[in-house]
Amino acid sequence: MSISVFDHPILSGLLGDAEIAAQFSLAAELSALLAFEVALAKAEAGAGLIPQAAADAIIALPEHFMPDVDAIREATARDGVVIPELVRQWRAALGDQGSHIHFGATSQDAIDTGLMLRLTQVVRLLDARLEAVVVAIDALETQFGTVPLMGQTRMQAAIGISVGDRLASWRAPLVRYRKMLRPWLEGGLPVQFGGAAGTLEKLGDMADAVRARLAVELGLADRRQWHSQRDMIAEFGGLLSLMSGSLGKMGQDLALMASAGTALIGGGGGSSAMPHKRNPVKAEVLVTLARFNAVQLSGLHQSMVHEQERSGSAWTLEWMILPQMAVATGAALRTAAELLGSIERMGEA
Amino acid sequence: MSISVFDHPILSGLLGDAEIAAQFSLAAELSALLAFEVALAKAEAGAGLIPQAAADAIIALPEHFMPDVDAIREATARDGVVIPELVRQWRAALGDQGSHIHFGATSQDAIDTGLMLRLTQVVRLLDARLEAVVVAIDALETQFGTVPLMGQTRMQAAIGISVGDRLASWRAPLVRYRKMLRPWLEGGLPVQFGGAAGTLEKLGDMADAVRARLAVELGLADRRQWHSQRDMIAEFGGLLSLMSGSLGKMGQDLALMASAGTALIGGGGGSSAMPHKRNPVKAEVLVTLARFNAVQLSGLHQSMVHEQERSGSAWTLEWMILPQMAVATGAALRTAAELLGSIERMGEA
Amino acid sequence: MSISVFDHPILSGLLGDAEIAAQFSLAAELSALLAFEVALAKAEAGAGLIPQAAADAIIALPEHFMPDVDAIREATARDGVVIPELVRQWRAALGDQGSHIHFGATSQDAIDTGLMLRLTQVVRLLDARLEAVVVAIDALETQFGTVPLMGQTRMQAAIGISVGDRLASWRAPLVRYRKMLRPWLEGGLPVQFGGAAGTLEKLGDMADAVRARLAVELGLADRRQWHSQRDMIAEFGGLLSLMSGSLGKMGQDLALMASAGTALIGGGGGSSAMPHKRNPVKAEVLVTLARFNAVQLSGLHQSMVHEQERSGSAWTLEWMILPQMAVATGAALRTAAELLGSIERMGEA
Amino acid sequence: MSISVFDHPILSGLLGDAEIAAQFSLAAELSALLAFEVALAKAEAGAGLIPQAAADAIIALPEHFMPDVDAIREATARDGVVIPELVRQWRAALGDQGSHIHFGATSQDAIDTGLMLRLTQVVRLLDARLEAVVVAIDALETQFGTVPLMGQTRMQAAIGISVGDRLASWRAPLVRYRKMLRPWLEGGLPVQFGGAAGTLEKLGDMADAVRARLAVELGLADRRQWHSQRDMIAEFGGLLSLMSGSLGKMGQDLALMASAGTALIGGGGGSSAMPHKRNPVKAEVLVTLARFNAVQLSGLHQSMVHEQERSGSAWTLEWMILPQMAVATGAALRTAAELLGSIERMGEA
Repeated sequence: MSISVFDHPILSGLLGDAEIAAQFSLAAELSALLAFEVALAKAEAGAGLIPQAAADAIIALPEHFMPDVDAIREATARDGVVIPELVRQWRAALGDQGSHIHFGATSQDAIDTGLMLRLTQVVRLLDARLEAVVVAIDALETQFGTVPLMGQTRMQAAIGISVGDRLASWRAPLVRYRKMLRPWLEGGLPVQFGGAAGTLEKLGDMADAVRARLAVELGLADRRQWHSQRDMIAEFGGLLSLMSGSLGKMGQDLALMASAGTALIGGGGGSSAMPHKRNPVKAEVLVTLARFNAVQLSGLHQSMVHEQERSGSAWTLEWMILPQMAVATGAALRTAAELLGSIERMGEA
Repeated sequence: MSISVFDHPILSGLLGDAEIAAQFSLAAELSALLAFEVALAKAEAGAGLIPQAAADAIIALPEHFMPDVDAIREATARDGVVIPELVRQWRAALGDQGSHIHFGATSQDAIDTGLMLRLTQVVRLLDARLEAVVVAIDALETQFGTVPLMGQTRMQAAIGISVGDRLASWRAPLVRYRKMLRPWLEGGLPVQFGGAAGTLEKLGDMADAVRARLAVELGLADRRQWHSQRDMIAEFGGLLSLMSGSLGKMGQDLALMASAGTALIGGGGGSSAMPHKRNPVKAEVLVTLARFNAVQLSGLHQSMVHEQERSGSAWTLEWMILPQMAVATGAALRTAAELLGSIERMGEA
Repeated sequence: MSISVFDHPILSGLLGDAEIAAQFSLAAELSALLAFEVALAKAEAGAGLIPQAAADAIIALPEHFMPDVDAIREATARDGVVIPELVRQWRAALGDQGSHIHFGATSQDAIDTGLMLRLTQVVRLLDARLEAVVVAIDALETQFGTVPLMGQTRMQAAIGISVGDRLASWRAPLVRYRKMLRPWLEGGLPVQFGGAAGTLEKLGDMADAVRARLAVELGLADRRQWHSQRDMIAEFGGLLSLMSGSLGKMGQDLALMASAGTALIGGGGGSSAMPHKRNPVKAEVLVTLARFNAVQLSGLHQSMVHEQERSGSAWTLEWMILPQMAVATGAALRTAAELLGSIERMGEA
Repeated sequence: MSISVFDHPILSGLLGDAEIAAQFSLAAELSALLAFEVALAKAEAGAGLIPQAAADAIIALPEHFMPDVDAIREATARDGVVIPELVRQWRAALGDQGSHIHFGATSQDAIDTGLMLRLTQVVRLLDARLEAVVVAIDALETQFGTVPLMGQTRMQAAIGISVGDRLASWRAPLVRYRKMLRPWLEGGLPVQFGGAAGTLEKLGDMADAVRARLAVELGLADRRQWHSQRDMIAEFGGLLSLMSGSLGKMGQDLALMASAGTALIGGGGGSSAMPHKRNPVKAEVLVTLARFNAVQLSGLHQSMVHEQERSGSAWTLEWMILPQMAVATGAALRTAAELLGSIERMGEA
């Protein structure tokens, strides 16, 4: 199926991003869920909450566990989350030690933590992509920075500037975004671990220690559970949309420059009716992705109205939106680097 | 890949809709594009614009044409649309008659018309689903309509009403939506045919006649090209969101009723931490889908700012949003019927 | 205060609309609320539900009633709606007959019906404005329709069209919107009357007759209460955003044409830094208003998730959004007519 | 007029915020614009760019300048910004020294910097309000923290927690937001100063020094012009929506608790139809404001697609949205403190 362009066999080549998308594949998702359980078993065995033998069995589970995806699909349509059936399958695979997996945890612990593990990879990819786009802008600066360009304000010629001035307005926000990613790169995204209703009631005095250990095992930041506090998700989405928004501005500029003849973009797109045309397709795509993310962000903020200890409806809404925003942002960065690299001339002819 | 829940091997069982999704499969898309070309060839041969032999070859094309999807994917990343490469492949498959396919048409003619063909099926499915939900509400009316229920206003007990009063507030908008679908069911969705820049300049005096014939061939309504007039798309999306919005209201009501004990929903979802729980998962999903579509609709209205004769950026944004809204609406209707059918008791205990 | 540009002493001249805004003044609002009560009194006296003397007193109330706005403001901060305190003041003004006003009604009946009365005027204004814009397009057609214009697709020159072709793409959706307004102009917007929890429980057998009579008195359509069915509001907002969206497309086109020299717009805006410039301010404003409404519409669809018999939170959200959308649409139509009337030349030089 | 609830004589008592709104009054706006010009004159005189006598006259201007608001309104409808006419009036008031005001600056410099001055006050107010809400939560913690409460997940009873657990989920994000405000409180919001097209071309070698001095004079952070880089605006709006979002979650919780009897809220709202009711109006308002801001944020991100050196359409869209978001957030914080202060009982009865 291909309801989303990001999953579409053809359009994902135009609008998608294979590297970011890989973090949202089913395999990556199931693997991250199991990584949570493995790390939890280590932490809980260390605290004497489950037998070491059980932990050993759980640690070995990723090597041989094969999920029954059809059964998970069927159960999830009923349960609303994958974990109940997945725990059942994990327990079956573990045999006698099965009762010790997922001890004290709830679905949201595994799913949110699994997401944080994958978003950690996304953050690294985005940071590297931002750097690549900045490098591409710097290269244009070297080539064309001093070439005159008519400054345009309110869609009208204003006064003369240089290509370098325009480039500086594209570069500066990207540099800021790299700084905004730094705390997540250095401090880690937050682990999620709260148990049934957020109190880790089954862990007694060991709760904080186990959670801290769990975070260390996973390379995440330790934080008290944030089951119903979704600011981290909305903030993350906001940063994604800032990135695609600034790239959308660059794309809009380049589409206008291509139209006015102040940028020559190589390898433009063909037309079925007019073979002579060279359309600024990648520039347009940047505008599209910016507007897409600007729309989606609203949904992540709606889902902050997350009632009580866990909201099925608000949480599920995040699942529908955040992965798409991440891929859209990755695609925007990828496309921006390609587009900048294809520019053959900038400035007044 | 599974960036969208609608394409996700597991979550599509919870949030997706197989029947609506089928209209957005690659196969359905490519088939609809070719259906446009076949109908166009018939119409143009009838008008003497292309040889009958060419039309015959084009009519036979669907029987044997096998697209090279990898090549289309690669070309689309450059061209921004599938049609230039697809036309190339069609022409190669047609051999000598190849130059006559897509005569006078542009990418947007094929893609928009292909979408209309598939939305026609979507409209039929939605209409049937609306009817099914109304039937399910009627069944509850028969069973529980006269049972007392405490009316709730502003989240507080108000005065006594009946279950039937609550049911009536769920039913009435659905009946209105069926009326709103009627013009599209009876008059057809509009064909798109304008050529390179909307003037059908290659068809001369035959333009209107060919477009009218094309519409008849495809079971669509004849309309002058609407390349840059996207109100039909935004209006369609608006109706989708109205449907999911009203079902979201029903879902919110049922989640609150399940919580308060004034509805007993069978087959609720399980919890990994609390096996005793029965979560009103389908009711929550209806709220999620309503809020999702309410977010998305904004993007379709943004894409109405469609500059000049064709906007790559605005048009592409539609592709990212409309299929998801259609599937979300289908899923909401499917889920609503299931949820209503699983209600075992309504009203004050 | 001037938190909204529509209420801003200066910016409302750029972005607002005095005629539409007048429908959302406090005076118009209080007057419409009282019009509901007057019509209700007539209908209820006719049905023998309240004494004719009470109805006579209520009918005379608009002539002398002076609201204590400060007291209403204070009470509304507590009650969430203006009606409880307003009813108290009305009753005080009516003396002995006071107990008969608002009989069987609830806050939402008065407020929603009052809104429908004012939206009826808005619909008439919008229809007349649409006609004026169509007339202005027709005038340009007469002047410049046959002048050549280079068609632009995907921000690149395509093939030659005429100015008339471009104008046709601006006109067609506006004609459709007039058709979409027709049912509301001819059939009337719906009255709201349901009582405390929607059942008109105090009116007994007379409920339907009183509601029908109320609708006739007010020039509205009779409909069973739709307290928690907000599709009419979302649909209305959708039509507003369709209108501003199509005008935004026209504005975007004209800003690009002014930039490219294919339209000469008289009376453009000045710049504080560059006195020589003539900015296409009105064209830009049309884009702004289109994007504004496209954003807002999402909120009206969110508010369709209107729980139980009346949702304070969802209903209040409508109040925050719908008036702004109506004024934005009126402003877009007004600005469009001005902009079109100021065009001095169109087409290739 | 009262198109926005924030400007409405009655509804602003329910949904508005007088202190935040004061920063968006016309007086505050005009005063901030003049503060920019005064500081600029000081900085430019210090750099020898304008005569000290001119600077002295400009510094004295706020004492006696009376704007002709009608003329500004009329000119702004044409120019799209207030500055050209305001500069004309300032110059007339300054007489011979008039030519030295606004030297090297553009409209956006004055307007954006003026906004930053007012947002600085907004940030301080929000920070103090966040503290007040945290204090109110702490007070409830002291009173009711250990009282049992049934944890609720997915709208169903889960396991027992304490009132303190619920309170902790309300408090934690607010503490985070205070940390997010810190850089703006300590480092200052950024000055805007770039001249006609961002290059400060009239200031020659003194450009950086004058901008740095200007920032110091105004208590803002020095930054190179960000005319077309609107990430700061979108980021600011994002933080506003995070705040209102978390308070919306609290409001939703309290409305549900009031409904279930696990919170007793004093001073609830009255009903015109059911005098016995006590509606949780302030709790509902928090949900409304959260959803409102979640909608609006999309518009600020749309306006990041800010073409070329200055986009009239994208910039104007910010004016329509940001002040409303600031007031909505202020109102949410004010309402939250009032609501928390009115709670008489929490937890299982």
